[in-house]
Amino acid sequence: MSEVPNLEERAAALDAVDELGKLREQFVLDDGTVYLDGNSLGALPSSVPGRVADVVEREWGRLRIRSWTESGWWTAPERIGDRIAPIVGAAAGQIVVGDSTSVNVFKALVGAVRLSGGPDAGRDEILVDSSTFPTDGYIAESAARMTGCTLRPTAPADIPGAVGPRTAAVLVNHVDYRTGRLHDLPGITAAVRAAGALAVWDLCHSAGALPVGLDEHGVDLAVGCTYKFLNGGPGSPAYLYVAERHQAVFDSPLPGWNSHAEPFGMRPGYAPADGALRGRVGTPDILSMLALEESLKVWDGVSVAAVREKSLALTDFFLECVAAHVPAGRVASVTPEVHAERGSQVALRCDGAAAVMDELIARGVVGDFRAPDVLRFGFTPLYVGFAEVERAARVLGEVLAR
Amino acid sequence: MSEVPNLEERAAALDAVDELGKLREQFVLDDGTVYLDGNSLGALPSSVPGRVADVVEREWGRLRIRSWTESGWWTAPERIGDRIAPIVGAAAGQIVVGDSTSVNVFKALVGAVRLSGGPDAGRDEILVDSSTFPTDGYIAESAARMTGCTLRPTAPADIPGAVGPRTAAVLVNHVDYRTGRLHDLPGITAAVRAAGALAVWDLCHSAGALPVGLDEHGVDLAVGCTYKFLNGGPGSPAYLYVAERHQAVFDSPLPGWNSHAEPFGMRPGYAPADGALRGRVGTPDILSMLALEESLKVWDGVSVAAVREKSLALTDFFLECVAAHVPAGRVASVTPEVHAERGSQVALRCDGAAAVMDELIARGVVGDFRAPDVLRFGFTPLYVGFAEVERAARVLGEVLAR
Repeated sequence: MSEVPNLEERAAALDAVDELGKLREQFVLDDGTVYLDGNSLGALPSSVPGRVADVVEREWGRLRIRSWTESGWWTAPERIGDRIAPIVGAAAGQIVVGDSTSVNVFKALVGAVRLSGGPDAGRDEILVDSSTFPTDGYIAESAARMTGCTLRPTAPADIPGAVGPRTAAVLVNHVDYRTGRLHDLPGITAAVRAAGALAVWDLCHSAGALPVGLDEHGVDLAVGCTYKFLNGGPGSPAYLYVAERHQAVFDSPLPGWNSHAEPFGMRPGYAPADGALRGRVGTPDILSMLALEESLKVWDGVSVAAVREKSLALTDFFLECVAAHVPAGRVASVTPEVHAERGSQVALRCDGAAAVMDELIARGVVGDFRAPDVLRFGFTPLYVGFAEVERAARVLGEVLAR
Repeated sequence: MSEVPNLEERAAALDAVDELGKLREQFVLDDGTVYLDGNSLGALPSSVPGRVADVVEREWGRLRIRSWTESGWWTAPERIGDRIAPIVGAAAGQIVVGDSTSVNVFKALVGAVRLSGGPDAGRDEILVDSSTFPTDGYIAESAARMTGCTLRPTAPADIPGAVGPRTAAVLVNHVDYRTGRLHDLPGITAAVRAAGALAVWDLCHSAGALPVGLDEHGVDLAVGCTYKFLNGGPGSPAYLYVAERHQAVFDSPLPGWNSHAEPFGMRPGYAPADGALRGRVGTPDILSMLALEESLKVWDGVSVAAVREKSLALTDFFLECVAAHVPAGRVASVTPEVHAERGSQVALRCDGAAAVMDELIARGVVGDFRAPDVLRFGFTPLYVGFAEVERAARVLGEVLAR
């Protein structure tokens, strides 16, 4: 325990020079809690309650139907998409917000199979990240069934060797939800494209935590949620990225009236809109969507490179504090040591992890448990500080020393 | 114009005995506006702003991730479904809330084709209401394409004669969005079922305005939005009804993790949950969903039969006032005269309808325009009164007399 004062001093010194540290003021947080679950539900940005009240009381309550035009409700999905774009390295006009991640995985994956030519062109196989968050696998199975493809679960690292002339599309997570492993987006994308197939990336655990570089790396399609590192609120709408080069032929399996070229023409025949809004479906859920729009304002002037730098410093420091505070052999990190392979979370395998997490939460350190035996701690660089990291590891050590 | 005082007196007398009249106090309305667009976006119930503030500030802001269990977020889709159930004549456990209407049409229609046996059983045709709100037709085309069926647009009245051994499923609107015509749900459902096919009903323009009787009439599947006569707020989530007898074999094309039997088991293989929640997909949009839940409390103790009675009285009176106030030949109602064929709106064909509606709105009478030439007026019995109806018709007469 001799290292403890040293770690506390180190934490204080790191906080003192943290250029993102002042952003914490823009969130509703209490100093009694170390919130390390922003990778599941981001904290509330302070300006959101006022904005939501205005949407409900004035825009809905007083303007009512007029708000679809006068308050900009109708164009919110593409407008908010353009706010997300710089965070994931996309030029404007390629992202549209709406629906859940699962629904967007379906749109993207079926769209990708069709863009590849699909079974008619001899491409009848979809590869899916074998360690994926489950919903992607379930939806991929449905997409395969409905497009006449077979589904082959493949570890992300094995994808470059597995893609071939029969591959239509590949669905892979940028960061593994359980281990926090960051997969090689540039390399896998290049290999998939070289095989004539399309890659669909799930950015749920990377967007807002590290540079994604969608345009730079030639990604075809991507989806992501907005309630983790983007702090959009519980169940806030997800988004779909369709690279500009694919938009003119992107063929959505959910061609709702919001994606029509002339939605208020009320025409019996479908004609898709141009651009990203071809990925829209039905009427957008305005309350959740405008809460998200307000939340994203926190990002004004924030550098994703600085976020990544702090994220790695936070997870490095957490691993160091865990090594110092936790009795030997009680936990084992399943998160890669190497920076190039690490997202913005640390996952610790631990006997009795579910009960341990309950006790941590009771003591004010909030992470989450993922079956069967993982303690998961997410580090949101916009509002987590180094002293909190030290405290979280110290409390974990206390719980496991009992 | 000699009838005008008479109509004003009649309106006052009707308002005086209106047993639903006191419900208007539960909504945010201004007496300067006659709001006849509740069939597009329902007015704001007065208790919603406080509830939404609590969801944002306490449940998200302070409890954060704990709210998924402690604030009942996780079970909201089925809990709110059970609140909608009595309004549409369904027993509990058959409705789940989430996603847009378009997405639910896709789930329901693909699910219906599969329940019918589909092309493998010789059922390779989907009939779709030829006068449908466009999104249903677009989504039906996608559902047909992805299940190996062909799509046949059919007028609702012709469906009983058109269904046959090749029919897999039929998608039809309960009330036509443009004309306000109420279709024969019991008769069409019986004919579809007698042919061994399944009927999917779109209740967007009927739920909350008239008795639907889903269980009583043996409906197979139904969908509807919640932002019209249910006043859930802009883009509030839609719902899916799957009759209990179909739930064990209902096979969703969007099997997201929220529909898994054990969603937090994080299992690679999909196993559907029992009951209505098999229709869930991804993480529900909590802000919109809990605003809807609060909105539905207005319905506590309200009889749908009384709502229907008032709805017909309102539309009868409006037609009478239009006949008295509007210069002859300037408008023609396309809404059926017969009560059994009328929903809760009146649609008037009118030259220059778009400009006429702009002028009506400028004078405080809010309806909407539907291409190419329809003035549409919706009557929400929970908050529209007879004096307002008279005023709306009078202002319309003034505008058209210019």
